[in-house]
Amino acid sequence: MAKITVVGLGPGDAEDMTPRAVAAIRQAAVVAGYHTYIRLIPEFVAGKRVLGTGMMQEIERCQLAVAAAAAGEDTVVVSSGDAGIYGMAGLVLELLLARPQNERPVWGGVVAGISAVNAAASLLGAPLMHDFAVISLSDLLTPWATIEKRVELAAAGDFVLALYNPKSRRRVQQIERVRDLVLQHRAPTTPVGIVTNAGRAGEQKTVTTLDAFTQAEIGMTSLVIIGNSQTYVREGFMLTPRGYAQKAAMQTSQQA
Amino acid sequence: MAKITVVGLGPGDAEDMTPRAVAAIRQAAVVAGYHTYIRLIPEFVAGKRVLGTGMMQEIERCQLAVAAAAAGEDTVVVSSGDAGIYGMAGLVLELLLARPQNERPVWGGVVAGISAVNAAASLLGAPLMHDFAVISLSDLLTPWATIEKRVELAAAGDFVLALYNPKSRRRVQQIERVRDLVLQHRAPTTPVGIVTNAGRAGEQKTVTTLDAFTQAEIGMTSLVIIGNSQTYVREGFMLTPRGYAQKAAMQTSQQA
Repeated sequence: MAKITVVGLGPGDAEDMTPRAVAAIRQAAVVAGYHTYIRLIPEFVAGKRVLGTGMMQEIERCQLAVAAAAAGEDTVVVSSGDAGIYGMAGLVLELLLARPQNERPVWGGVVAGISAVNAAASLLGAPLMHDFAVISLSDLLTPWATIEKRVELAAAGDFVLALYNPKSRRRVQQIERVRDLVLQHRAPTTPVGIVTNAGRAGEQKTVTTLDAFTQAEIGMTSLVIIGNSQTYVREGFMLTPRGYAQKAAMQTSQQA
Repeated sequence: MAKITVVGLGPGDAEDMTPRAVAAIRQAAVVAGYHTYIRLIPEFVAGKRVLGTGMMQEIERCQLAVAAAAAGEDTVVVSSGDAGIYGMAGLVLELLLARPQNERPVWGGVVAGISAVNAAASLLGAPLMHDFAVISLSDLLTPWATIEKRVELAAAGDFVLALYNPKSRRRVQQIERVRDLVLQHRAPTTPVGIVTNAGRAGEQKTVTTLDAFTQAEIGMTSLVIIGNSQTYVREGFMLTPRGYAQKAAMQTSQQA
């Protein structure tokens, strides 16, 4: 029986792909994934059968991928970032386990990649030195009320917030609502970093403030990081101290 | 002026290090980091000056690293996982920015790595398909009351919880308190995954339940993932559906 593996490509540049991810793709006969991701790795996909976007939905594509592996072809399902964070790992695993035992391909596992939140943070400086909450603002599969509640509780808990899918063509008001909710718990001057197309062509970053960030350009490939009460900006870098004690010590050492 | 770069090694195996991380280390004359991390990458460190643990504290080691770069030697500071998540990125950047402009090395940036939470999730199945909160239980730099409040709010918000530094020799009661807090919001049967030494020698994983997980072996190199209200276990895999709608659809398709 052949193998199905779910592979995180990282931001998109081959420099950010792990050797384990590259090897898994090279070994496969079939590569399934959204066209945008497949296009990031032409050198690894050449000569393989591609189950791309075409007219297919996500679930159908993953079903075809599992079926290809069950039929004897080593298959990888690729996502950008880490397939284990809002990625294809769950769907593929669910589809695999839904098959009768004797019609299942071998589970090749999830090959973790550099996720969007890690890539964005690295470009902004060091915003994730302390506890953070990762929230997707997409209400396609999650009721908006649930998302809103999570934003509120994360804001109340002084978590750094990392927002996936912050805005789309259709969905433009939600980010304004998020700003208003967080403003109930944090200063208007709280630093906010926006990274678009982290680690790939068209990369852009902006460091701004909680009261103003929704006026910046934000799209589907943006990741928004809202600092906690201790986050500060220095010379364009966004920094969240690891501890209140450390921050005090650093300030003392700077004054000394 | 030489360059200082903060590099995330990932879990520890060279297969999980990005080419960008490897290149940064190879290019450097000086490598600074905790001995345990340096030992993970002997083949890349050979022939370089190492600023290891020795008698040094973290802040002192990073100060020496910044000084080495300022004195003309390309330097990398390495952490396991992603140096941008509870790592050395912030400390090094703070120390760099604290120096007068003309005594600063060039900032080589943060090279993101596969963080512990990504590595652990990939081994457990797909627990992070939905919103999650990352919390360190270490109260060395953070008041315990703050940590407790965050656990409570994340539990109330139905976030998947990813716990760093869940337990140490000295700190054994906190994880019990965390369990009790989360139990106020979630069923005793909520799946909990524990991964110790993810992606390196001695790797272990356990999938258990919220009421029982504190009886499992947990240490400083463990990462604990507590599922949300929708997370389930099937054949040993921990799965959080991407959306309530999807879960329903999958169940329907399984029944059909």
